Amino acid sequence: MARAEAAPRTGRGSGDMRPVVLDRGAVGYAEGSCLVAFGSTRVLCAASIEEGVPGWRRGSGQGWLTAEYAMLPRATLTRTARERGAGGPGGRTQEIQRLIGRSVRAMLDGFSFGEYTVRVDCDVLQADGGTRTAAITGACVAVTDAFGWLVERGQLARSPVRRRVAAVSVGIVDGEPRLDLEYTEDVRAGVDMNVVMASADLDAEQGAARTGGARFVEVQGTGEHSTFDRAQLDALLALAVSGIERLDAEQRRVLAAPAPRGAGHQ
Amino acid sequence: MARAEAAPRTGRGSGDMRPVVLDRGAVGYAEGSCLVAFGSTRVLCAASIEEGVPGWRRGSGQGWLTAEYAMLPRATLTRTARERGAGGPGGRTQEIQRLIGRSVRAMLDGFSFGEYTVRVDCDVLQADGGTRTAAITGACVAVTDAFGWLVERGQLARSPVRRRVAAVSVGIVDGEPRLDLEYTEDVRAGVDMNVVMASADLDAEQGAARTGGARFVEVQGTGEHSTFDRAQLDALLALAVSGIERLDAEQRRVLAAPAPRGAGHQ
Amino acid sequence: MARAEAAPRTGRGSGDMRPVVLDRGAVGYAEGSCLVAFGSTRVLCAASIEEGVPGWRRGSGQGWLTAEYAMLPRATLTRTARERGAGGPGGRTQEIQRLIGRSVRAMLDGFSFGEYTVRVDCDVLQADGGTRTAAITGACVAVTDAFGWLVERGQLARSPVRRRVAAVSVGIVDGEPRLDLEYTEDVRAGVDMNVVMASADLDAEQGAARTGGARFVEVQGTGEHSTFDRAQLDALLALAVSGIERLDAEQRRVLAAPAPRGAGHQ
Amino acid sequence: MARAEAAPRTGRGSGDMRPVVLDRGAVGYAEGSCLVAFGSTRVLCAASIEEGVPGWRRGSGQGWLTAEYAMLPRATLTRTARERGAGGPGGRTQEIQRLIGRSVRAMLDGFSFGEYTVRVDCDVLQADGGTRTAAITGACVAVTDAFGWLVERGQLARSPVRRRVAAVSVGIVDGEPRLDLEYTEDVRAGVDMNVVMASADLDAEQGAARTGGARFVEVQGTGEHSTFDRAQLDALLALAVSGIERLDAEQRRVLAAPAPRGAGHQ
Amino acid sequence: MARAEAAPRTGRGSGDMRPVVLDRGAVGYAEGSCLVAFGSTRVLCAASIEEGVPGWRRGSGQGWLTAEYAMLPRATLTRTARERGAGGPGGRTQEIQRLIGRSVRAMLDGFSFGEYTVRVDCDVLQADGGTRTAAITGACVAVTDAFGWLVERGQLARSPVRRRVAAVSVGIVDGEPRLDLEYTEDVRAGVDMNVVMASADLDAEQGAARTGGARFVEVQGTGEHSTFDRAQLDALLALAVSGIERLDAEQRRVLAAPAPRGAGHQ
Amino acid sequence: MARAEAAPRTGRGSGDMRPVVLDRGAVGYAEGSCLVAFGSTRVLCAASIEEGVPGWRRGSGQGWLTAEYAMLPRATLTRTARERGAGGPGGRTQEIQRLIGRSVRAMLDGFSFGEYTVRVDCDVLQADGGTRTAAITGACVAVTDAFGWLVERGQLARSPVRRRVAAVSVGIVDGEPRLDLEYTEDVRAGVDMNVVMASADLDAEQGAARTGGARFVEVQGTGEHSTFDRAQLDALLALAVSGIERLDAEQRRVLAAPAPRGAGHQ
Repeated sequence: MARAEAAPRTGRGSGDMRPVVLDRGAVGYAEGSCLVAFGSTRVLCAASIEEGVPGWRRGSGQGWLTAEYAMLPRATLTRTARERGAGGPGGRTQEIQRLIGRSVRAMLDGFSFGEYTVRVDCDVLQADGGTRTAAITGACVAVTDAFGWLVERGQLARSPVRRRVAAVSVGIVDGEPRLDLEYTEDVRAGVDMNVVMASADLDAEQGAARTGGARFVEVQGTGEHSTFDRAQLDALLALAVSGIERLDAEQRRVLAAPAPRGAGHQ
Repeated sequence: MARAEAAPRTGRGSGDMRPVVLDRGAVGYAEGSCLVAFGSTRVLCAASIEEGVPGWRRGSGQGWLTAEYAMLPRATLTRTARERGAGGPGGRTQEIQRLIGRSVRAMLDGFSFGEYTVRVDCDVLQADGGTRTAAITGACVAVTDAFGWLVERGQLARSPVRRRVAAVSVGIVDGEPRLDLEYTEDVRAGVDMNVVMASADLDAEQGAARTGGARFVEVQGTGEHSTFDRAQLDALLALAVSGIERLDAEQRRVLAAPAPRGAGHQ
Repeated sequence: MARAEAAPRTGRGSGDMRPVVLDRGAVGYAEGSCLVAFGSTRVLCAASIEEGVPGWRRGSGQGWLTAEYAMLPRATLTRTARERGAGGPGGRTQEIQRLIGRSVRAMLDGFSFGEYTVRVDCDVLQADGGTRTAAITGACVAVTDAFGWLVERGQLARSPVRRRVAAVSVGIVDGEPRLDLEYTEDVRAGVDMNVVMASADLDAEQGAARTGGARFVEVQGTGEHSTFDRAQLDALLALAVSGIERLDAEQRRVLAAPAPRGAGHQ
Repeated sequence: MARAEAAPRTGRGSGDMRPVVLDRGAVGYAEGSCLVAFGSTRVLCAASIEEGVPGWRRGSGQGWLTAEYAMLPRATLTRTARERGAGGPGGRTQEIQRLIGRSVRAMLDGFSFGEYTVRVDCDVLQADGGTRTAAITGACVAVTDAFGWLVERGQLARSPVRRRVAAVSVGIVDGEPRLDLEYTEDVRAGVDMNVVMASADLDAEQGAARTGGARFVEVQGTGEHSTFDRAQLDALLALAVSGIERLDAEQRRVLAAPAPRGAGHQ
Repeated sequence: MARAEAAPRTGRGSGDMRPVVLDRGAVGYAEGSCLVAFGSTRVLCAASIEEGVPGWRRGSGQGWLTAEYAMLPRATLTRTARERGAGGPGGRTQEIQRLIGRSVRAMLDGFSFGEYTVRVDCDVLQADGGTRTAAITGACVAVTDAFGWLVERGQLARSPVRRRVAAVSVGIVDGEPRLDLEYTEDVRAGVDMNVVMASADLDAEQGAARTGGARFVEVQGTGEHSTFDRAQLDALLALAVSGIERLDAEQRRVLAAPAPRGAGHQ
Repeated sequence: MARAEAAPRTGRGSGDMRPVVLDRGAVGYAEGSCLVAFGSTRVLCAASIEEGVPGWRRGSGQGWLTAEYAMLPRATLTRTARERGAGGPGGRTQEIQRLIGRSVRAMLDGFSFGEYTVRVDCDVLQADGGTRTAAITGACVAVTDAFGWLVERGQLARSPVRRRVAAVSVGIVDGEPRLDLEYTEDVRAGVDMNVVMASADLDAEQGAARTGGARFVEVQGTGEHSTFDRAQLDALLALAVSGIERLDAEQRRVLAAPAPRGAGHQ
């Protein structure tokens, strides 16, 4: 039912991120997991290791990594029906889970980690804009830990993770470029852009300044209600780069500690 | 992947419940909600009020209440695939959500609350046995608050909620009747029974002792690996009644306070 | 289209069964079959032996037994659409066929009869209440004969059937506990219960009185329109036990003769 | 499982029909029904009257008539899976039910009988060749009675049925044209043909000899394993005409009596 | 949207075909292909060779040939929705692709060409009546070339193609038998018939006159709006034979040249 | 089956487009249509006007425009199965048709053209890279003509088309930024980007130079096999802008003539 909406963007500037939380190990049974929050947006990311790979990869000795995305029905202000019907997940969901999969695969130095499938589930508990970018950012932590788990158990000599990835949304709202849009901004944005970036290689990270090595993985800018020129595109990219630096620092911080292990993993 | 399981039933007797938590108001946007835990089993229950009713009820002036049940893929020790395919939710899921719906409808004094549909979503975050009984117990709190929300907003003169419902599983494990089975007990149980009970009418509750008025809503006993005789049935029912008394007391306690209201409801 | 309904329960008391017919061998091509009638309710039960087992059981040397349930569209007073759509059989159908499967599996002394699948089809020709309990009662005869067929052909040394199962519905109608509800009673029943029981082990049957050994396989009591107390539950169970004794006697009688064999089995 | 087949065509010549039975009124609840047997082939035909028409016909004041066809899983020598999956009924089933629908619609003098839908369900209980032609022949009786029921109740001034339809299969087996193929002939037939014919108009029937007025409704000849020339086509058509004369005489005979009415129709 | 229709049958008699075009090799990447036009009806036929056969044929050493049929959404005067939904292709489409498959398989001298699947795609670019008969006629050319491609590459010693097939529609429009119906005639036709014929064996063709050897593969006559008598059936068959002679001559002419090979096949 | 591939990019530089053809009016029955070719890639675009809008827009007085995308099975070097199954079109197809829809909607000055739905079908006849960008470029012509058709018939006072859109793919292949990738380049590209741009407003076009007004509608850059830095992003955008200028000039040229009208539109 319709109801009053909370005032958006309380107390933050157009270039500020909302508070970011990365709660590593939030899913008790998963090999790697992270509950990520960008403000009121909350996504539970779980990385599961399964033996075996899809049919088209069988016998290659290579692994695979794929992602699924879904929302709890009441993650949204008014309830959204489950995508259970015969048509499978809708177009928006498929686009998002394909994006998450591509982004997280960009963390890896290939698939030569044996015939395992890493399945990343990103389930949105609360949706206040930016769910796909939060999901990518949290999935990075979950996947890092899932591969770490394989290494700890001696099933893998070395983790294939070579870089972190993080993502943020930017957009033009009321003519102004803004970082990390909330839901109420997202629906009003003339231009909406999701940017995914990868950190410098972890091997090189010791000596290098982070900013020098960050590179784009994906840039998706869409003008649904309006078009945009080159100057606006440049402004949005600059905002996105600054937001991702912030996220990457947080990822680096939480990943510095040893991985937590749930009851199912002792 | 296979892994060591935690030891079950640590420190509790065959007639003890696991620790029960009812976290009322856990879903920010929902009209009523409750995160319920029976030990490691955790279910997020959200009750949504929608205007309108299914086609077969339209124009009757009567409302409807229905439930959905699902598990996050990594709620389980090893990942379970989402039920997204063409076949709709599987037989087990359908059985469970039909049971939850019937049980929660038993709370109501009919459907004369106008053409609203109350949709109860029970999403299992972690599954360690007893998810359907935890879901019913949590849904009771969520539904009470959802109707309370309608009353508060003046859309309803009086809540149709006339009694509470709660549920628990019991079973015969290694020949012994036990209350509130964990997953590792559940798979070994020769007989497994789910019992749903309703409290005395809320109107009468003031003066009456609770036990006197509790009645059965549903008794589902199944001997998959074995059969059971009348004495065993009686023992299981006695255990279930004692567990439900415990749950009902907790429901009564948390519902005594005013309903919490999330940001979306101010 | 709507039409006048025949008067129910003509000439029988609340504890009487309707006339029961077990027409053994009614399906010409099936390895075992039985057309069962409880009054106007008629269900055609066919047990088919197939070589091979479902994927999850392959290579185990063990067999499997499963059931399907369906209604002809015009088994009902007004036509019911076929469950052909993308969603697969509905929740009610799935619940019933899962119940039939569990009940009939309780006849067996395990699955060590080799990698055969026994598939029991219960197709309702006419539905006047109690179709699932009639189906279980008829399926018991069909399954007994299907395993007998394997033994006769020398493909099995000994039938895995160790006990008979039978089922009946009971309910509280107009405040009165009644046995074997007809459709017009079923829709009015405040409480509705299906009870499945197993006979004593066939090996022990020679010397033992039957009643002493009967045990519960499944008890499913539901108060959709009302709740029930312990005294009512006890009354319903007593009625059910008496009805199942009656059914078991009839099963024992028809199974005493040699199995009929259709043209397809000579 | 594989088993010996009964010897086909025992005692009948290549131009003989199998024994034909039309058991009018076989489905207790249906407005019109007929259990038809061509030898071992048995099909239960039920015609249901429903108020309303499909969306594309709504508001036209015209009715509609449509047919569905299905086989019980164990109608066949070895079990055939139900067509329940997401793909809907298979191509063969759809072809057959479209053929039955077209054929039965040819009985009518248009659709000016008001916004009713007549739904003809043809469920095969036993399949020994010729199920679609038996279905058409039985459906003719069921549909005649369903419209008669509407007339009797005063909801229709005059039945729209203007002619009977009947159908038979013919084929070339081992080089020989044969009438009314059994299953074992059908699978070996090089050419297989289904012929549907309509009787002379019922109004004109009084004075006219039947043969003079019979006309083709549908001719479907298929050479899957072989081709056929004009002489063979002529021989097959002649056989079909003679078989349909036989069927039409039987239809005329059973329809001469008053329609039986089941318990649901008093 | 509704619009004026072009006048039909301009300048041709009731026994005339529309202009026929067989554009061999029209699909650049396919092993064999043909764009066929019967007047404004245009169908793109592509025959693809795939290694392997369906599961039920695996290990037999035998090949398989199957067909699919579809229309572009705007092949029709008003747009027709794609058949993408859960129900799979509709009944009409399934009937047509089964007919095309049977017809084209009649070209072959069995399936002893090894475990290849030939898949014939018939996609209607413009639909002005007779799409299924045009599809069969074009598919004949495509399949001939696809097998020729296998022979050219040395993967097959000899093509299994033993005869050509062609097809045409005939019908009774305004009481007059007509050859090769256009859309506006098709919808008005009381009787509609599709006839598929096979040429004499190619080996025998050298010396023999063609007409002598042509035989029927399929005759499908339907009286949806009317019935037909034997004289009308004979007239329709005669028209169909004359049309197919015309089509066969055109097939023979275009197949006399060497097969064109697209860029993908050099 | 596998075969030799033609050599790519014959005779063109990394900044050159393949030959572009816009065959306006290619679909006889459609209100607007265009067969577009970028080299060997060929897409048939048809714009259909339908009365009425989707349910969520009904009664608003506003129209809607949506797109569908599909490939003929043999548009590809080896056959691709039709997307007919229960799951609906796959993720890639849904992403593409959502992109086409958004891009073409950017042509419009809102939806105040009444309750019409414009449905754009983009069917790929041959796929050699860049099918989605070719589809957008061709759809622009088809949509312009479809609205022109409504104006010509007097059903609309003024076309809502305010700008043209065109699209091109760019990518980094073997380290080199390239314009308009062919299939063999596409599969090897480390970075792949699709860019959609809109022309200046048509009203302003008279006096203005085109380049000055072109703006981005969509920028989708993906590094599946590699990541990219800002300099590479800038190089790709510059190439895309130059390609789109070329496409826009061609669109302007073909749209300068009066719209062709097929036989169905006279």
